[in-house]
Amino acid sequence: MFLDKLLAAMETNQSALCVGLDPDLDRLPAHLPRSAEGVIAFNRALIEATSDLVCAFKPNIAFYEALGAQGWHALDATLRAVPAHIPTILDAKRGDIGSTAQAYARAAFDELGADSITLSPYLGGDALAPFLERRDRGCFILCRTSNPGGADLQNLPVDGGEPLYRRVARLAAGSWNANGNCGLVVGATYPDELAAVREICPALPILVPGVGAQGGDFATARRLGGPRTIITASRAVIYAGAGADFAEAARRAASDMRQ
Amino acid sequence: MFLDKLLAAMETNQSALCVGLDPDLDRLPAHLPRSAEGVIAFNRALIEATSDLVCAFKPNIAFYEALGAQGWHALDATLRAVPAHIPTILDAKRGDIGSTAQAYARAAFDELGADSITLSPYLGGDALAPFLERRDRGCFILCRTSNPGGADLQNLPVDGGEPLYRRVARLAAGSWNANGNCGLVVGATYPDELAAVREICPALPILVPGVGAQGGDFATARRLGGPRTIITASRAVIYAGAGADFAEAARRAASDMRQ
Repeated sequence: MFLDKLLAAMETNQSALCVGLDPDLDRLPAHLPRSAEGVIAFNRALIEATSDLVCAFKPNIAFYEALGAQGWHALDATLRAVPAHIPTILDAKRGDIGSTAQAYARAAFDELGADSITLSPYLGGDALAPFLERRDRGCFILCRTSNPGGADLQNLPVDGGEPLYRRVARLAAGSWNANGNCGLVVGATYPDELAAVREICPALPILVPGVGAQGGDFATARRLGGPRTIITASRAVIYAGAGADFAEAARRAASDMRQ
Repeated sequence: MFLDKLLAAMETNQSALCVGLDPDLDRLPAHLPRSAEGVIAFNRALIEATSDLVCAFKPNIAFYEALGAQGWHALDATLRAVPAHIPTILDAKRGDIGSTAQAYARAAFDELGADSITLSPYLGGDALAPFLERRDRGCFILCRTSNPGGADLQNLPVDGGEPLYRRVARLAAGSWNANGNCGLVVGATYPDELAAVREICPALPILVPGVGAQGGDFATARRLGGPRTIITASRAVIYAGAGADFAEAARRAASDMRQ
């Protein structure tokens, strides 16, 4: 079960930190080639330097797609470089219907072997089903995202009452969680919303982006989210150093955050 | 401009039909290899057989991702096989924030050279901006999707009034369309919703999936959607024949639909 693996990693490493592996060719350390091979070397060093400090690694698929076919190879190599006891979260924000959702689930879970994935709720429960049916894999559903524009839809009051993101939280805690493998995504940049979601979903894992570069606060998110909260940081860790010692700098940044 | 290219193709070919290039290895004609090369051969034959009958081709990226790194190559080759005057719609339903959305936009428009893309609105306007800012490319925003579960969120009444999908239509016709490159996706399976969206957005192109295998009706969708409506069909065309003459069978199916 995904949740067991996640909680075990949190316990073993005493960590709620998830490192986002979002490589940008323009920001790779100078000594690495600007290529998929450079990305693989970068990620492997980051994983090796931080895998005893984190509860998960989260590559965002967009950064790999931007590299074309070689990017897929880099994503695959990155996921395989993660130690078996640390869960992976494929940040893909997928959402599609029927046979298409099946194809996405196959790509994420079977081709790439990811332990979990992020998904968009806009298409509803039947579009999430091909992912949620995979009992051994986790699904993090977007709820209140970390960007200001998230309010355009997510904060609209529905049925004359609660905002849409709370409705999503209720669905995730209810029928969507039939297999106990559902989680949510709530940005650290919206602490009130995080507290509200935690109240609706006491037991669900919540993935919290938006600390560091986006302005959210790690300690506040940890306090409001409680024990099953995964705080994800990317740029603040992976680009902590720009030189040949980037991995040690990332380790120091991850270690500081974990405290 | 994307809209000009689309309208020109509709006029030249007297067609509102978009063929979805969604190859499934298990359903390729028996004489083709079950591989990315087989997919490329399949798609090239379909494109050649139907490009004077359609207004667009729409590969859904999920079917290519399911093939791994070679799938990316097949997607690239497929997009390059489309004649220059026929627009391509990359069905990706993407939605992410800031630098990630930038990376997706680069992948779709620059790496793959797609003319347009489908996007999810759940993350709001600032997440769509990196795509909408590309004035020469088109963006089809999910509005009312063709699956029953779409109602879970899309039909919820917001602000005590209209359902969410109509709010999305208003945003798409308003601020999101500042560069005149916004369109919407509305399923043929929900004709009342299609009519409602067309009333809100008289000038926007509407991409209509859900005819054929999903049960929506081509003629009804065409009538309710009006002239700027693109009806997309995939399985009913690309798997019209299962033998060596699959391309001719696809041509007949596309020709019948276009009438």
